[in-house]
Amino acid sequence: MAECAIDAIFLTTEPEVRYFSGFHSEFWHSPTRPWFLLIPSEGKPVAVIPEIGVAGMQHTWVDDIHSWPAPNPADDGVSLLVDLLSKLCRRRGRIGMPMGHETSLRMPLIDYQRLCASLPAIEFVDATNIVRTLRAVKSEAEIEKMRFACAATSIGFRELPLHAAVGQTERQVCQRFKQHLLQLGVDGSPYLIGASGCGGYDNIIMGPTDRKLCEGDVLIIDTGSTYDGYFCDFDRNYCFTDTTDEARRAYDVVYSATEVGIQSARPGVRHSDLCKKMWRVLENGGALGNDVGRLGHGLGMQLTEGASNMLGDDTVLEPGMVITIEPGMTFAPGKLMVHEENIVIRDGEAELLTHRAEPEMPVIT
Amino acid sequence: MAECAIDAIFLTTEPEVRYFSGFHSEFWHSPTRPWFLLIPSEGKPVAVIPEIGVAGMQHTWVDDIHSWPAPNPADDGVSLLVDLLSKLCRRRGRIGMPMGHETSLRMPLIDYQRLCASLPAIEFVDATNIVRTLRAVKSEAEIEKMRFACAATSIGFRELPLHAAVGQTERQVCQRFKQHLLQLGVDGSPYLIGASGCGGYDNIIMGPTDRKLCEGDVLIIDTGSTYDGYFCDFDRNYCFTDTTDEARRAYDVVYSATEVGIQSARPGVRHSDLCKKMWRVLENGGALGNDVGRLGHGLGMQLTEGASNMLGDDTVLEPGMVITIEPGMTFAPGKLMVHEENIVIRDGEAELLTHRAEPEMPVIT
Repeated sequence: MAECAIDAIFLTTEPEVRYFSGFHSEFWHSPTRPWFLLIPSEGKPVAVIPEIGVAGMQHTWVDDIHSWPAPNPADDGVSLLVDLLSKLCRRRGRIGMPMGHETSLRMPLIDYQRLCASLPAIEFVDATNIVRTLRAVKSEAEIEKMRFACAATSIGFRELPLHAAVGQTERQVCQRFKQHLLQLGVDGSPYLIGASGCGGYDNIIMGPTDRKLCEGDVLIIDTGSTYDGYFCDFDRNYCFTDTTDEARRAYDVVYSATEVGIQSARPGVRHSDLCKKMWRVLENGGALGNDVGRLGHGLGMQLTEGASNMLGDDTVLEPGMVITIEPGMTFAPGKLMVHEENIVIRDGEAELLTHRAEPEMPVIT
Repeated sequence: MAECAIDAIFLTTEPEVRYFSGFHSEFWHSPTRPWFLLIPSEGKPVAVIPEIGVAGMQHTWVDDIHSWPAPNPADDGVSLLVDLLSKLCRRRGRIGMPMGHETSLRMPLIDYQRLCASLPAIEFVDATNIVRTLRAVKSEAEIEKMRFACAATSIGFRELPLHAAVGQTERQVCQRFKQHLLQLGVDGSPYLIGASGCGGYDNIIMGPTDRKLCEGDVLIIDTGSTYDGYFCDFDRNYCFTDTTDEARRAYDVVYSATEVGIQSARPGVRHSDLCKKMWRVLENGGALGNDVGRLGHGLGMQLTEGASNMLGDDTVLEPGMVITIEPGMTFAPGKLMVHEENIVIRDGEAELLTHRAEPEMPVIT
């Protein structure tokens, strides 16, 4: 903060508030009330939260808790923020907040504008990089949660062929899988998509639908399942009875690109380097394009975090970063093949959190 | 829009984009890419979305789809928006967007500021009420999805005592319940909290924790489970073997307040009236306060939507609105009792979507 000449950081979103306070509640699904956390340049965080959250916040390490009877559309925490920020920002007159790429403002825009107008002497500046850099390198406690989510989900994927069959719908296969993951110990699967098609699928972010799985189909399931607030994010591909040579070749190519990605992900390497190395394998294997826009990303309290394996992102890998290795390609018009694994950057070789995908496409009959 | 003198509405959040386009994807869990929908004052919505979403958007009724290769931190859709908005806003020079209570901005603040600066002739004004009013009254198709989520979850709650027992942890009971709900057909339980304590619980938004349930405990489970993108939101209370007379009395009082709420919820009644009627019952029953801040709210694509059963909210109930009736009170220091049911406002008496709670607190042994 001193380097950026800011007095404090102002946070409004769930992962950011949770990261610095430990406050973990699914209540953020309700958009009614805003929640705020202030991180002074010295000392502990200060919470400015609705009354309904006080009992929960008292169980965290935060002890300076300010609350108001919310909802109160006329003043949902704004006057409290004005008071506290004017005191916190006396030295430099600058407050940082995440305003850049991948961020959002989780409070009404009108209230934010009112806050700025009430503090004419304070400048609100971007602090995206401070928060992103801190969050990118995980503690061993954070990694342990992701290791569990990855391991449980890997077992679920491995056993999926025991429960799935030709004639079931995408939705049935995915619902059964979701139940199995809960039995295996994940807390839930906020992200779980399924897409299929004869010889390949055309997207990796929709579904599951009521489409019936037929002989020759390729099905992808991609899931962000969580354990104690931390995500895994990876996928597996299956074919039903059999599929085209083209799809099988695409599987091999993307499997190889994943190998290259895992082997190359070491401290000092840049995300853009990882992308180049994987893309070379995909291109040599016949890739027609990639509409995902990148070949992997950060992972943690959110399904995707921070840096991207893409050209232009020259962030350097450091030990403790958790990322996905996610090569994908269009191998025929309207047909995609995407693989994904989750790893921790370690000194030397990366640690694989997921159990590696099968080297040949698993068959469901 | 004509009344508000705006040319178009600009949307950035998942429920709003889904409401007007039908685009339904869990991919919004990734904060990396912004998604935009423009609603012109005449004609169909216009989508401005990352390339990864084009195949999915093509399956909706939207046919004017603009995309860019995302992520692109240097220009994540902003220049596309500048082009389209300058064309759409030629007549009145005003664009509406949800900026008020319960809204947020799901794009980087820096990009929003750049967008405004690039369109100096266009004024961005609040359109919260237009969107909220449209969404508050549900179609029968929307109600049908919520009816299913409510019915399945009601069965789950009714059968919960068959699976729970003294000695289990909150987490074990909730995980088992979550699995059962999936078996009963819900798509997931994005919101599922559990809180317990001897003779009462102290919050309704945290947990479940590893606390072991003991004789005399009261446990509340509150869940927002979904079906095809629509939520239920209600809770049930249980006691373990037995509990205090005080807790049982509180259950009776809050049960009666719920009855009054359900009976009173008719077209023409205001949310503030509903609050007053329920609060009278709670106060007469010994309520010491209520830190939830309201006694129910709108329900639909989000866990909580729109108007609140609280003083100051004079929104008038209309047929087709789906709301929760959620009286709650502190009945002893640090001890809460909250009930909740989901209803549709109909001509005459409301339709109950949830299966009414037991008139006496269910006992788990």
